Amino acid sequence: MTEESQMAEQTPAQGQDVQQEHQKYIADLGQWHRSHSCGELTLANDGQEVCLMGWVQYRRDHGGLIFVDLRDRMGLTQVVFSPDAAPSAHENAHILRSEYVLAIKGKVRPRPEGMINSNMVTGQIEVVATEWKLLNTSKTPPFAIEDRCDAGENLRLAWRYLDLRRPRMQANLRLRHKVAQCVRRYLDEGNFVEVETPILTKSTPEGARDFLVPSRLNSGEFYALPQSPQLFKQLLMVAGMDRYFQIVRCFRDEDLRADRQPEFTQVDIEMSFADEETVMGMAEGLMARVFKDVMGKEIALPFPRMPWDEAMARYGVDKPDTRFGLELVNITEIVRGSGFKLFATAPLVKGMKVPGGEGMTRKEIDAFTEFVKIYGAQGLAWIKIKADEWQSPIAKFLSDEERKGIAEALDLKVGDIVFFQAGDPGMVNAALGNLRVHLAHHLKLIPEDSFNFLWVTDFPLFEYNDEEKRYVACHHPFTAPAPGHMELMTTDPAKARARAYDMVLNGSEVGGGSIRIHSGEVQRRMFEALGFTPEQAESQFGFLIQALEQGAPPHGGLAFGLDRLIMLLAGASSIRDVIAFPKTQKATCLMTDAPAPVAAKQLRELGLRLREQPGDKPKTDKPGEETKAD
Amino acid sequence: MTEESQMAEQTPAQGQDVQQEHQKYIADLGQWHRSHSCGELTLANDGQEVCLMGWVQYRRDHGGLIFVDLRDRMGLTQVVFSPDAAPSAHENAHILRSEYVLAIKGKVRPRPEGMINSNMVTGQIEVVATEWKLLNTSKTPPFAIEDRCDAGENLRLAWRYLDLRRPRMQANLRLRHKVAQCVRRYLDEGNFVEVETPILTKSTPEGARDFLVPSRLNSGEFYALPQSPQLFKQLLMVAGMDRYFQIVRCFRDEDLRADRQPEFTQVDIEMSFADEETVMGMAEGLMARVFKDVMGKEIALPFPRMPWDEAMARYGVDKPDTRFGLELVNITEIVRGSGFKLFATAPLVKGMKVPGGEGMTRKEIDAFTEFVKIYGAQGLAWIKIKADEWQSPIAKFLSDEERKGIAEALDLKVGDIVFFQAGDPGMVNAALGNLRVHLAHHLKLIPEDSFNFLWVTDFPLFEYNDEEKRYVACHHPFTAPAPGHMELMTTDPAKARARAYDMVLNGSEVGGGSIRIHSGEVQRRMFEALGFTPEQAESQFGFLIQALEQGAPPHGGLAFGLDRLIMLLAGASSIRDVIAFPKTQKATCLMTDAPAPVAAKQLRELGLRLREQPGDKPKTDKPGEETKAD
Repeated sequence: MTEESQMAEQTPAQGQDVQQEHQKYIADLGQWHRSHSCGELTLANDGQEVCLMGWVQYRRDHGGLIFVDLRDRMGLTQVVFSPDAAPSAHENAHILRSEYVLAIKGKVRPRPEGMINSNMVTGQIEVVATEWKLLNTSKTPPFAIEDRCDAGENLRLAWRYLDLRRPRMQANLRLRHKVAQCVRRYLDEGNFVEVETPILTKSTPEGARDFLVPSRLNSGEFYALPQSPQLFKQLLMVAGMDRYFQIVRCFRDEDLRADRQPEFTQVDIEMSFADEETVMGMAEGLMARVFKDVMGKEIALPFPRMPWDEAMARYGVDKPDTRFGLELVNITEIVRGSGFKLFATAPLVKGMKVPGGEGMTRKEIDAFTEFVKIYGAQGLAWIKIKADEWQSPIAKFLSDEERKGIAEALDLKVGDIVFFQAGDPGMVNAALGNLRVHLAHHLKLIPEDSFNFLWVTDFPLFEYNDEEKRYVACHHPFTAPAPGHMELMTTDPAKARARAYDMVLNGSEVGGGSIRIHSGEVQRRMFEALGFTPEQAESQFGFLIQALEQGAPPHGGLAFGLDRLIMLLAGASSIRDVIAFPKTQKATCLMTDAPAPVAAKQLRELGLRLREQPGDKPKTDKPGEETKAD
Repeated sequence: MTEESQMAEQTPAQGQDVQQEHQKYIADLGQWHRSHSCGELTLANDGQEVCLMGWVQYRRDHGGLIFVDLRDRMGLTQVVFSPDAAPSAHENAHILRSEYVLAIKGKVRPRPEGMINSNMVTGQIEVVATEWKLLNTSKTPPFAIEDRCDAGENLRLAWRYLDLRRPRMQANLRLRHKVAQCVRRYLDEGNFVEVETPILTKSTPEGARDFLVPSRLNSGEFYALPQSPQLFKQLLMVAGMDRYFQIVRCFRDEDLRADRQPEFTQVDIEMSFADEETVMGMAEGLMARVFKDVMGKEIALPFPRMPWDEAMARYGVDKPDTRFGLELVNITEIVRGSGFKLFATAPLVKGMKVPGGEGMTRKEIDAFTEFVKIYGAQGLAWIKIKADEWQSPIAKFLSDEERKGIAEALDLKVGDIVFFQAGDPGMVNAALGNLRVHLAHHLKLIPEDSFNFLWVTDFPLFEYNDEEKRYVACHHPFTAPAPGHMELMTTDPAKARARAYDMVLNGSEVGGGSIRIHSGEVQRRMFEALGFTPEQAESQFGFLIQALEQGAPPHGGLAFGLDRLIMLLAGASSIRDVIAFPKTQKATCLMTDAPAPVAAKQLRELGLRLREQPGDKPKTDKPGEETKAD
């Protein structure tokens, strides 16, 4: 906030009284209509009579004049109240405070020489007010309505409607709208039909946890909110809709990680008579269109592709960020008989070279060691390649031949540092793969404003779930096995590959999909592979299997995570910054105070009771009728 | 179904075996790609090699040739398998059955003279198959995939994916998509921003019953599914978004009437710095655009307007169908001192003339009498105007002067019939207002294919709720009172008028909205008028009042019911015919069997238990793990 603007600021205590006193000035909109937004007047409008409406960004009193920067979502316009030009308009203008809502009529004129602001569209002009109405007062906001706002996120979320007044948040929501519109235009032109699927659906196993909705008319029964419209979109293909899409809300009741929301938005797409090339080509075209129309950028098509095995080998993760190097190198065989026992016996040993990184301090390396422990690593071995020696706690255990092998495999040069991880492949890849990204940020290796797309393909069909002691689907149980892999589904599930593909942008999965199973027989075998009895398969997914036996066409599709995509396009650091009313990590809304206790009558109508008395978990700040067990 | 086509039909019992035998023919899509849809080939394509994919509508064997009508969502194309033209393609074509999924390559040629069907786009040509693949078999569908299908609605809903294959249902969903796209384009061009608001929100009183969603992370607390995004869209106005829209799902847990759904879709719109003219003008433009772009029809702007009082007086309902006459006439004063005691003492007496209706039979009149009893009427008085007398059970009670008054008021002519209703105004208006529409249908007075728009304005702000013994809001508690009516809110609520407006199309409310309260003080007074204590208002709507005190701009908007609008545009008789996967009147999905019992573990995680053992209400047809009380 500038010093000048602070002149017109009030303290909260004063603000309250002042606001009440100013209430008497509040007028109706009456027959006033806006002629322009606050972001468009230029010298071309010189001399015009205009009517603007918006919020007081600043008020400055200077040389007998009162200046107000009037803000709406399109920009700011300087309004002048002058005792000479229009004494009646000037008379009460001193009551104006930040965030008061104002309608003014006035005349556009060029700003005096010293007041021109060439950084603003409207910076050449000002509007001399001839008449104005106060449309509303405002209490002093808890934080300044500016992009430079340093209020904590909880405060911003509690006063979200003020947070959203900030230009950056407005721009994020407008960007989101533009992308959604662009997606719809592209898909409409491609003969896709947007079909709305139910939000009140049936709870199914095999996935994340469902949100449940108790049914009142069918007491004791529950709807579930959809984790995605997967089954409905497949049924639309069976229904002959041919090409479907929907920008749709999905729900997962998970323990929330940093950047997850209990409800999120998907661009959901499905195509009949389609193979991988059809779906991926359509999706690439969609991205190119969004980048061109919304971002004004050309992106190169087609996107590079990488099989899952290669992504894991080179990057340790299934969504590699390919904007920088630091690739992982498998040295398991090279150190198989090493004197360093950890390397000699580990199922997997990998190294990652940081070119020119030998200057890293002990403190930095200690921090990286702590970082990899998140992924289950015990420590972090490293070697600095000095001109005369390999400086490292482990170098002494390595034979000359092993050193030679490592140096060749990693193409080591003097000045490099190498990090190693040895052990279970899952841990090794996760530790080094994530360290890789961490290092790239730390070392500022990532070029700004670059967008690297990549398809990851040939995913495993299953992964083993230690907790449930069975195979579960990597994507979902409706993904088709690779050609020729149908037998493997039950004979050697770990080897079966899926007709699945993920679209990765800058190391984030922005989309994923697959060709689906369109045969009832194959779908039954899938459930068998997942450990379902035929009866369980029938009771839980009978309607799908039945549908596949009624002339289901070959089909496939994918879904984009809209929140994450917009976050990447907006350069935001959290998906919460591209969602109008997000929830906290505890899945609460700090503005409305949802979720909240409900009236006992509501639970009675639903045939439900709480397991605990609400008194068991005191909650002192909740107003209203508390839920009572009865 | 034609006789010919039945030749290729199979009985369900046979179908099963046949289908299994045919499984061996099923092939992969491989590298085949569609060149055309089944709805576009004409003589212009004569001689072209094409690749089509779709469903077998009919198979006919005739003169050594096999004919298949191949169907996709764009139409039908006749495919010929000829032993001369392509013996290998002909060889196994006899296996093809209705709803089998097929890919064919072949050559377009003109149909022979006698086989031309000028009712079809593709009726001039056929495709001679040179090669084909069976992509899937199909069990015999439970009903024919044709518009002429006479299957009951429950059967159609249980097999919805087959029901949706019917051309009319496909057209309905495509129409819905087109309207939604058109709405978005219009609003985007008008600088509206589509913003997604939460589905997991807070339960609030003052409205229909909420669907609740138990929170697992905040045990004992509940989200509610939104009945509309009303508060969020107002908060977006406070946030300076200026112009908002959203095509959004809404939820009401009501006892379902014939044409209601527990989830429905709204086109939700809100504008800042707007008055009634701004909002209504925008909404009229939107309708004109939809009719022009989607229906190819021009509609006249602006729409006529009618105050609520006039609508009730002339039509007895607040959403009059103005496509026909039969207006109600108030004769209370004329019969005030009548010898007919019912008329003399009733608070309201109204008559409705049916010109030329004196030929109605006793049976017809009896049926109308039964009809008005739905609305609380005891009976239905009537008079037939004969050349020589008034034929009526009540005519003898009426004085000459009363007859003269009635004849003048209703402009009676020989050959007319008049129906009367006397009593409580609510009953009188409901009985005659609904009889009016019933009669219009019965007498076929409604011109086909006409779309009559009307604004109803100047609604009451409150209506008295006998059950709760207090005033409740007619629209919702956020509707602004008419200018000068703020005092009336608490001094004489029945007299207060609202800044509300409904858009009526052919007697259905297709949209409704209002200018909102944008002052915290007025909003507090509204809650006072509704019988809230200040503490209740604060605890339930504190965040809204707080927002209104932070510089809320004047704002207003409206919402369209998309399901009903599409129903009217499609000429469908039920909103279920324009929703892909609707629920029954008992709010169940006959296809997925939602809602359903859930696993005991799921309830435990939510801190809930059922009030009744599920055994109390036996349900034998539910598979899967039943909910157990524990």
